Amino acid sequence: MSDQKTAAILAIGDELLSGRTRDANIHYLGGWLTDRGVAFGEARIVGDDIGDIGIALNALRRKYDYVFTSGGIGPTHDDITVDAIASALGVKVIEHPRAVAMIRSYYKERGIEMTPARLRMARTPEGAQLIENPASGAPGVRIENIFVMAGVPRIFQAMLNAIGSEIERGAVIHSRAVTALKLPESMLAEQLREIQGALKGVTLGSYPIDGDVKGVTIVARSKDESLAISAIDAVCAAMRALGVEPKREDRR
Amino acid sequence: MSDQKTAAILAIGDELLSGRTRDANIHYLGGWLTDRGVAFGEARIVGDDIGDIGIALNALRRKYDYVFTSGGIGPTHDDITVDAIASALGVKVIEHPRAVAMIRSYYKERGIEMTPARLRMARTPEGAQLIENPASGAPGVRIENIFVMAGVPRIFQAMLNAIGSEIERGAVIHSRAVTALKLPESMLAEQLREIQGALKGVTLGSYPIDGDVKGVTIVARSKDESLAISAIDAVCAAMRALGVEPKREDRR
Repeated sequence: MSDQKTAAILAIGDELLSGRTRDANIHYLGGWLTDRGVAFGEARIVGDDIGDIGIALNALRRKYDYVFTSGGIGPTHDDITVDAIASALGVKVIEHPRAVAMIRSYYKERGIEMTPARLRMARTPEGAQLIENPASGAPGVRIENIFVMAGVPRIFQAMLNAIGSEIERGAVIHSRAVTALKLPESMLAEQLREIQGALKGVTLGSYPIDGDVKGVTIVARSKDESLAISAIDAVCAAMRALGVEPKREDRR
Repeated sequence: MSDQKTAAILAIGDELLSGRTRDANIHYLGGWLTDRGVAFGEARIVGDDIGDIGIALNALRRKYDYVFTSGGIGPTHDDITVDAIASALGVKVIEHPRAVAMIRSYYKERGIEMTPARLRMARTPEGAQLIENPASGAPGVRIENIFVMAGVPRIFQAMLNAIGSEIERGAVIHSRAVTALKLPESMLAEQLREIQGALKGVTLGSYPIDGDVKGVTIVARSKDESLAISAIDAVCAAMRALGVEPKREDRR
């Protein structure tokens, strides 16, 4: 995979581990990286703890080409991501002059007063660049290979859009899927193993459907689109041989 | 926190990182552990790769009292969790006699034939105990401090219920929440910092609401329920002083 960059995410927030909030950014980032041909190696979630953030960040930034963080960059006392990242990198936290200007201008345009809490969102690790935030004014931060972004999904997504050009694209993994309803995954397992064994350069994933009507979706992933298609052709034939009509899908 | 056990989860599956599937088990486990007074320290997601699973598992099992895994224990070729865990622990994979009996009996009762693929779900690391699976027959596995469970949320949840008595309960963290609509988080930030500074033994979290109507939810968490209530009382007073009527919630 020498032509692919690698990436990881560290999602930060007590609320993601308490049962309060179901993270949405890991899933979104997964699709975004897949579309760009970047290999998403790992996701981690930790709480609002400077030590825990630092340990995870240092492990990830050394192992992956790009590390994204989400959460903990707001105006309140529990937003400690910037401090944690600066501490992990051994740099100071500064008030970033351009961030101050961006935040002042955002609030001024809206006739909202500037407060110390809002100004707090201009703090960055020393040496950081800013990530534009079209959604709510306060910028994200890039330092080394780390992209520090908001936890609110709409803002996280806006920041991803803003950094798209900084991420080196790689060979896109093409995927094709097919679903068979009323077919338990275990009925198809031997055939899948044979198809997988016969094909190089394509990975077959099998995902049971656990709704009112059970079934299975098979996804073929390959850098070579025609291989993914051939693999799904073979799976369709195996499904038909079991008396089930396959339904091809566009989903990943 | 000497009276609290600690826990982590390793969610396994290429589909969780490709953008295909949004994990649900981390969020569910978070609420389940919170209800039991177990401190949820960390969640990780890795793909279907024996090396990646092993590295993450070995890090987590040494650091936390309990480690849960989800995913990769089905009948198909891409289900490699059992092999990865056995490899990480340096033990063999065996066909567990009681698991064979459980799976045979489950399919026999339903008049479904036993296949090599289904029998594959009876493979466990040597030395493992079984976790009952009321939902679909094939058991989960406990070995050392690791609970190996299904990725399908309904089955993951059924297995959690089955192991409830094996998890040592700790002091439950009580939480109280209050929401103010049309109040940006940054308006309340100074007051929150003061309230947090004045109260020991309670943690205030501030969560912006990013819907059509914006606002903020403040959550107070404490082992002492009365402290959580006092903290929310103080937050309510601060909200009213800003001309916004607070709405108390039962949510975490």
